[in-house]
Formats: sequence, C-alpha cells, structure tokens
Amino acid sequence: MTNRKKLTLGLFGFGCVGKGLYDVLNQTTGIQANIKKICVKHKDKLRPIAMEHFTFDKNELLEDNEIDIIIELIDNADDAFEILEKALQKGKAVVTANKKMIAEHLPEILTLQSKYNKPILYEGASCGSIPIIRNLEEYYDNELLDIVEGIYNGTTNYILSKMFNENRTYADVLKDAQKLGFAESDPTLDVEGYDTKSKVVINNFHAFGVISHPNELFNYGIQNISIHDIRFAKEKNLKIRLLASTKKYDKELVCFVMPQFVDKSNPLYFIEDEYNAVMLQGVFTENQLFKGKGAGAFPTASAVLSDISALTYNYSYEFKKHYQNLDFFINQSKKLKVYFRYKEEKSIEAIQMQNIEVSYKSEDYKYVIGEVNLSNLINNKALKNPDVFIGLLSVK
Amino acid sequence: MTNRKKLTLGLFGFGCVGKGLYDVLNQTTGIQANIKKICVKHKDKLRPIAMEHFTFDKNELLEDNEIDIIIELIDNADDAFEILEKALQKGKAVVTANKKMIAEHLPEILTLQSKYNKPILYEGASCGSIPIIRNLEEYYDNELLDIVEGIYNGTTNYILSKMFNENRTYADVLKDAQKLGFAESDPTLDVEGYDTKSKVVINNFHAFGVISHPNELFNYGIQNISIHDIRFAKEKNLKIRLLASTKKYDKELVCFVMPQFVDKSNPLYFIEDEYNAVMLQGVFTENQLFKGKGAGAFPTASAVLSDISALTYNYSYEFKKHYQNLDFFINQSKKLKVYFRYKEEKSIEAIQMQNIEVSYKSEDYKYVIGEVNLSNLINNKALKNPDVFIGLLSVK
Repeated sequence: MTNRKKLTLGLFGFGCVGKGLYDVLNQTTGIQANIKKICVKHKDKLRPIAMEHFTFDKNELLEDNEIDIIIELIDNADDAFEILEKALQKGKAVVTANKKMIAEHLPEILTLQSKYNKPILYEGASCGSIPIIRNLEEYYDNELLDIVEGIYNGTTNYILSKMFNENRTYADVLKDAQKLGFAESDPTLDVEGYDTKSKVVINNFHAFGVISHPNELFNYGIQNISIHDIRFAKEKNLKIRLLASTKKYDKELVCFVMPQFVDKSNPLYFIEDEYNAVMLQGVFTENQLFKGKGAGAFPTASAVLSDISALTYNYSYEFKKHYQNLDFFINQSKKLKVYFRYKEEKSIEAIQMQNIEVSYKSEDYKYVIGEVNLSNLINNKALKNPDVFIGLLSVK
Repeated sequence: MTNRKKLTLGLFGFGCVGKGLYDVLNQTTGIQANIKKICVKHKDKLRPIAMEHFTFDKNELLEDNEIDIIIELIDNADDAFEILEKALQKGKAVVTANKKMIAEHLPEILTLQSKYNKPILYEGASCGSIPIIRNLEEYYDNELLDIVEGIYNGTTNYILSKMFNENRTYADVLKDAQKLGFAESDPTLDVEGYDTKSKVVINNFHAFGVISHPNELFNYGIQNISIHDIRFAKEKNLKIRLLASTKKYDKELVCFVMPQFVDKSNPLYFIEDEYNAVMLQGVFTENQLFKGKGAGAFPTASAVLSDISALTYNYSYEFKKHYQNLDFFINQSKKLKVYFRYKEEKSIEAIQMQNIEVSYKSEDYKYVIGEVNLSNLINNKALKNPDVFIGLLSVK
C-alpha cells in the first residue's frame, strides 16, 4: 500500500458542516488527519468543544507552517475567496464547500491553482453527498455528455414533497423546514434557485468545460408556488420539481433553474424530501443517475472528507473538459412550453407568451399553457410578481 | 494541465464490449490511446474491421514492448487470468471487465499488483456503466458503510420487468431477451445469479475489505419464477427484484444473491428493464443510489475507457478498505423471512422452515411464508427443484 501523508488541517467555520467534519474525522479510522486549529467569527457563541481548539485570528491558521490544508466552511463568499487566495499563497492546499464562491470565481480558480501549484478541491460545493465533481473529472472525462440535469437543492425538494404529499401550503411547510433546520431563516438563496444555480455553474464547468457567471443564467424558484399549481400537477399525474438543467444542442448549451412538471417516466419524479439527484446522459454510458442527501452536517462533511483523503496523495482537479477546448457556449434562446399562473393579463404579455394552447380561468385562479422563449424570461421583472408562477412542461 | 501519457493498447477479445471500446475510442477526443493490435480466437469469424488489426497469437501483444496496457475482454476466466499474469510479468498494466476472473482471484490480484508494481483496473467488471469500484476506493474510503445492495444484473431485471409489466411468462420473455441480445443462448450465469455473485464478491472487497470466494456465498436466481409468484407480488403491491445484498452487523457481513419482494419505499422498486442500481448506506453519507445501464457494448466500454484514462496518470487501486484491516468476516447464519412456493411438503422440511405464518394452498399452486436460516439455503439441493421458488420478504 502506498504511504499516504499524515495531514494537519486548519478549519475555518464551525457551523453545521464544520462540526460535522470534526465528528466524522473522530469516527473514521482510515485517514490520518488532525484539525490543529479552528478559526471562528463570533467570540460570544457557545461552542460544543473546548475553547482551546478555537482562534478568532485567521492568520493563526494561514501563517502556521505546520498546517498543510485549509478547510474553508464559512458562509460569506467574499471572505472565503480571500482565505482561499491567502492559503494558496502560503503553499497550502484548500478544500471548500462554498458553492457561491467557487461559481463566481472559476477563472481565478484556474489561475490560482496553476500559479501556486496547490490543489483546490470542492466536492462539498455541489450536490452535498453526491460525488458528482470527482466523477465528472475522473469517470466522464472522455464521455460525450448531452445532458446534466437534476435536483440540486434539498430544501426546495423537501418543501415540494411535503406540499404535494401532505396537501400543505408553501408558507406552512417552509416554517416547518426552518424549525427542522432544512431551511435558513432567510430562505431566499434556496427557494429562489440561487443555490441551485451556483451548482449548475460548477457542474457545467466540469461536465462541459464552460465557464459562466451565475448572473448570466436564468433562475426561477418556488417562492410563489400555490396549492393551485400543485393541484394542476396532481390532476395530470405530474409532480413539480425544482430543476437544474443543462442540455447540449450541437455546440450550444441551454441551461436554467426552474420548476418543472415531471411524469413517472422521469426518475426525478421519485426523488422525495431532502434528497438530491443528478442525471447524466452521454453517448457511451447512456443514462445515469446519482442520488443522495443534498444537505446536512454529515452528508456534506463526507464530501469534504473525501477531498481531504484525496489530498493524502496530492490529487488535484485537472479541469479536463475545460482544457479539451470543446468550444461549447451558452445560448439561452430556446423555446419552452410552460404552465403560467397569473392574475393580470399584462403578465402574459410581459413574458411574450406565444401559441397559447390552453387557457383556464376560474374564480380561484387563472393559468395558460403556451410557449415562451427562455431569453425573454431572464431578468424579466414580471416574474418577480408574487401573483405569478411559471413551471416548465417541456423544452421545444 | 498535467502532461498525460499517450498510451498504446493491446486488446484481447472483440465481442460486444471489445467492439464497443473500439468505437468509443474512435469517437472521444479527450484521451490519447491507440489500439495497436487485437487478439481474437476464431479465425473464421467475420470481423467488422480490416483483418490487419487482428492477430491470433497472444504473444504478439504480450511480447510487444510498445504496448503499455493490455485490455482483456474475453469470456473465459481461466484464459483471462493467464493473460493478466503474463501481461504484468511483461511490465504492462491491465484493464479487464472479467468479473468471474477477478472475483475468483482476489488474493492473487493483491499479490500480483504489488509484485509487479503495475496497476490492474476492472471498473467494467462490476455493474456495467456504474462507476462503483472507483467510488468505493476514492469516495467511500473513509466512510463506515453498513449496506451495499442492489440490482447488479441487467438481463434478469429486464426479464422481471417484462414479466411484471406485460404479464408474460419467464420462458416467453427469456426468448425475447435472447433475440434482443440481452441474454446469452445459455443464460445460466445470469438467471441463476452467478454473474451477480461475482460482483458481490468484488464490491465486498472494495466496500468492506473482505475477500471471499464466490463458491462460499448463496445465490438463487429467477429461473423457476412463475406467474403465480408475480401475481402474489402484485396483490401485495410489491415487485420482485433479483437482489445482491451485503449488510454489516457489527463485524459480521451477511451477503447473498436472491429474489426479493420490494415495496415502493425501496428505490429498487423503480429500477426497470436492463438498468442496474447500487444502494449504499453509510454512517456519514447516509443513503446513496447509483443507477445506470448494467450491460451493453457502450456502457461497459465506457467503464473500460475510464480505466484506460486513469492509467494516463498511473492510477492504481490501493485496496484501501482491505489494508485498513477492518476485521469484517462473512457469517451467513441469519434468519430470513421468505415466501416459498412448493409442490411437495418435503421441500418445506428440506429448507428447515420455521414459524410458518401463512400457508396458502389452491389447485394452481401452494406457498408458505415463514422463517429460514440463510445457512440452511446454501448448497441446499431442494432449491434445485424446478417446482419451488423462494423469495426474500425481509431479513429478521
């Protein structure tokens, strides 16, 4: 057996995932890694382990030559990037689960890794416990992928499942999810699809080699979903899932985050509660599905742990698809068939809906089914209106 | 980007997977690998590519110093092992998809890899296109796994799906599967669970570090399944799946291959047709599912291709779980609750069934539901009787 390095870690952040990692490292026997110090922000917070483990000074970790690896598990993306950069400068490898930071800094990640020749790993940043990034890098590196699609956010899938299975309202389930720790007190990033979009950007990078900024892509969430929408789905034997989708058409990639009506022929129909799933379709492997917990202390910590383990043999991403120069580009001019619930007729005009094939009006609510162009949805203020809800039926 | 090696390959076998690999290598651009020569057995078979690519002399590949990697894709396990050994002696890495050969030679694989210091990779040997071995080695290496279970054989899942969904008999669907190339003309290895059992042995090795010989484990297939068994399942809202199962109880591993009745709470319920699935349950990642095509030219070839790609950076398995000395051992003395269809009462005695809680007799058929000990099933001749069928309801 290869002799693997014994690692000394410096940990930033001791929230849910940080504490999870601490516990996981204490339970597993296969890896020789020791957390030397943990840097946290709030001095007056009660900590579940002795204070001697903590510091409030980031330099105590960054300047410590004994520390080989910085594990970055804080919330703030800007602070996280600063830590990443400084750690690499100091000759340390970095493991992070900060999806926003990674998604917004892909060009810098490429530059920094080659400049300092130190690995940056972030399996925990996409789809929680599902080992999607490493598989895209190491297993699908020569695959010609056509579709990467799935449920990338556990909070929203939990809410949608409960609304559907227990006939409850969005507000009611959200409150519950917050109590259970499945949703933040400010749930915006999850429920409006921003969290999912960061993961789309990261997965696109490793699946197709393309770099995009999250701001370029369309995201629409479930914050305005009503029981009418759920009832519509049920009547048609469909479920609603918040979908992350990237599909390749020749050299064009069409990608977006939005609720989709799915039927039983779609494996995502069966993904319930806080689970995530990634579906891949490629020329050789055909259809593949990975399913696992998308959030939670241990599932995310286990992804972080797998990165730490990979650093014992100096693993680093090679960004294979990116360097294959596949010339894919993002083009979001694509016709979508959608369900659109609205109150005022001007909302329909605002999204430039065409070829309306169904128009339903009752005292309770109104909807139309017709075609819109994805490009007309991006940054469209009409979709901020809490009285509307849009859900994908199919890509034309 | 790391400079990766350009590889020269020698290929043994040009059946379904061999031809698939040839086509895949021609279509992908990410890997620099060239098949120099293909060694085949039958001189008078028509080949889809020019004869100049072929040889009938294995030494032409094994003795060729230009060839870095031997790709072994032949049927015969003994011949395959001979090729493996010889190739390593000659300083070549080996990629194989021969599950029987690997499962029967795990101790030798360990010895040979360390003796010759050349990698032996076999992703294609377990669960077709699903990247299970590499993930067990690299992602779950520090996970404390409790369960590795799934559908590892596409042929039998295809037969079970068709019988269930189209109300057809076993014989009828089997004939169809043979026509479509999903089943061999002699389907024994698939339908009786031997193929699945080889994969159980391989997965156990990488998931738990244990070495066992296929002959030690219990396998029972679907060759005697009847429409009565399917009807029983339907009445109870269950489906029947040929299950590969390994569960850990403290230091004991209980593992077997047998048909199981599954309900909707089990993800395997939804795995249809020729798909395979692997479910993992671990302390940290909790429940994970991998689903993909379990057979076929391209899906298996893509697994082989991923091994070839890994050899461009000299990847080799470290057999991490094995060298962690986890001291797991296989103990098959476990009570199972089973459905048992029979004709003669003595069959019930022969498997030493106890605590019979349901006994059903009609003109058409008879069954009992009760408890058996797994150890009483292993090598039990009563189960060879074509008039009986046993299916697992639950592990007690």
